Amino acid sequence: MASRGPSLPRITDVAALAGVSTSTASKALNDTGQLREETRERVRRAAEQLGFTPDSRGRALSSGRSYTVGLITTDSSGRFSIPIMLGAEDALSAGEMALVLCDTRDDPLREQHYLRSLVSRRVDGIIVTGRRTEAREPIDVPIPVVYAFSPSTDPADTSVIVDDHGGASSTVRHLLSLGRRRIAHVTGPATHNSARARAAATIESAGDAFVGEPMHGEWSERWGRHAVDVLLRCCGDEVDAISCGSDQIARGVCDRLRELGRSVPDDLAVTGYDNWSVMALASRPPLTTVDLELEELGRRTAQLLLDAIADNPHPGLVEMPTRLVTRESTLGT
Amino acid sequence: MASRGPSLPRITDVAALAGVSTSTASKALNDTGQLREETRERVRRAAEQLGFTPDSRGRALSSGRSYTVGLITTDSSGRFSIPIMLGAEDALSAGEMALVLCDTRDDPLREQHYLRSLVSRRVDGIIVTGRRTEAREPIDVPIPVVYAFSPSTDPADTSVIVDDHGGASSTVRHLLSLGRRRIAHVTGPATHNSARARAAATIESAGDAFVGEPMHGEWSERWGRHAVDVLLRCCGDEVDAISCGSDQIARGVCDRLRELGRSVPDDLAVTGYDNWSVMALASRPPLTTVDLELEELGRRTAQLLLDAIADNPHPGLVEMPTRLVTRESTLGT
Repeated sequence: MASRGPSLPRITDVAALAGVSTSTASKALNDTGQLREETRERVRRAAEQLGFTPDSRGRALSSGRSYTVGLITTDSSGRFSIPIMLGAEDALSAGEMALVLCDTRDDPLREQHYLRSLVSRRVDGIIVTGRRTEAREPIDVPIPVVYAFSPSTDPADTSVIVDDHGGASSTVRHLLSLGRRRIAHVTGPATHNSARARAAATIESAGDAFVGEPMHGEWSERWGRHAVDVLLRCCGDEVDAISCGSDQIARGVCDRLRELGRSVPDDLAVTGYDNWSVMALASRPPLTTVDLELEELGRRTAQLLLDAIADNPHPGLVEMPTRLVTRESTLGT
Repeated sequence: MASRGPSLPRITDVAALAGVSTSTASKALNDTGQLREETRERVRRAAEQLGFTPDSRGRALSSGRSYTVGLITTDSSGRFSIPIMLGAEDALSAGEMALVLCDTRDDPLREQHYLRSLVSRRVDGIIVTGRRTEAREPIDVPIPVVYAFSPSTDPADTSVIVDDHGGASSTVRHLLSLGRRRIAHVTGPATHNSARARAAATIESAGDAFVGEPMHGEWSERWGRHAVDVLLRCCGDEVDAISCGSDQIARGVCDRLRELGRSVPDDLAVTGYDNWSVMALASRPPLTTVDLELEELGRRTAQLLLDAIADNPHPGLVEMPTRLVTRESTLGT
């Protein structure tokens, strides 16, 4: 068919085909009023035959709701916000709510523009998400808002975040359960909240088994490779496990260890973080890592927003559990 | 602020604060009617003070338009559809149009559900995108539709696709310009349209410089590594360049060549495809590759849809140019 098809059938077309008045057709399709079942059925058949779809905007206007939620994201690259968005969309669509996407590209002016536009569209609520786990300034709108991944600085807001403490602790407990007793930690910049939180949880969980200081650098494979050189020079055979703050770093660690003739996990066990499949599965060997369960985080965010829209807000911080995924980098083949 | 703020200020609140009638306030804010500039200004100040945002839904209903576009994607993983979506969103938001996200997860029932929902919301148009370059069955709705990345099987529809022939040819011309005369091609499954199209363009552009047959396998680093073993066993020193159908394959090719002591690009030049930064930049050496310019494809799709909504459809196939990005895997350091 051509891009521009015939115009939409109207309720008057349905009424004409069924041989009833427009108001009877409307009652039949909305299951209201007192009509004979036979009449209702005739109208329904006419609607089906014509491909009639009721205009949901009237319902929206009369109910004072738009059945629409806005999603504000600062994360154009999408690594973290995309799964959150898909989870939220999944939960919302089950309730016949539409998700409007607003990508601010980290531009405060763009964010203000989007907020005005969403309010003028009378969206029922807004989800705000970002690429960092640092808390952000709340947005100022007179409708329900839930923050996902990047929490609001205001504790009275509802924010849904990843339990990074639990995630990092789970890798350490796993390494200890495998008999590892000298664990080093290689991670991202000390200026990043996620790197600091994971490092602190690693130190706390490892206790006496922790070696040296957390090694902070870029979130990159290159830093992972370089960190291995630094670590082996300083501590050599003292280390039997390296827990990493990201899968990219862990993949670089594995590559460099292999190049130096060290076996993973026989000589050193390695763990990642994120369960980013393009890294975790392509790594040689594949990585034991922490899945952030971001789709589930998105679903939970949407549910909390639906609650708030229904006048049942849940102020405060919700920490979502992570999931440890074990693979060859700790278990061997 | 709490999740549920105060209720939205209404036009009557603005009128009361400005000391005018509701109809005067409405005229002042809509720049209609005959009013003194002083009155208009007083109403504007009152609106600003109260944080009043006009309800755009009335305008939408009276104009017969919703200023909303639906985006149907089958690509939950998002590698290709996310940049397309962001480009479309960017072009649409400039025209005050909102983008509603519908992720079908490759489920035809879910797609039908979304189409009904979008039609009942009276979206002005729909963008359909997917993860494969194979043509897909058109959707049946009485509103404008434009297909992005995955074209419609109906030539009367508007479809915007990547010029894969041009993209693959550009890598071959680049290799020939560097003096390479024995080019092999390693790519994805022969059942994939994108792999076949890129292979055909490579053979055609390379002419006598093409070595052997296109090597089809998985879209993976593992296949890239394995293909090097096969290629060196069969053709050994006959090959001075390997053009790959994806960056993942090219990264595997580079890794295996390094492990075998072959220098890239001194012994063999390598090219990728996609300019997927996590692969192309992390590869050792970084990859010369083809950028699909998917954000631009998304923008063009949105513009064509806006044209169609304005009763100016452009039926047919639009092929978008790719961009060659040169890096160390062909140029050296």
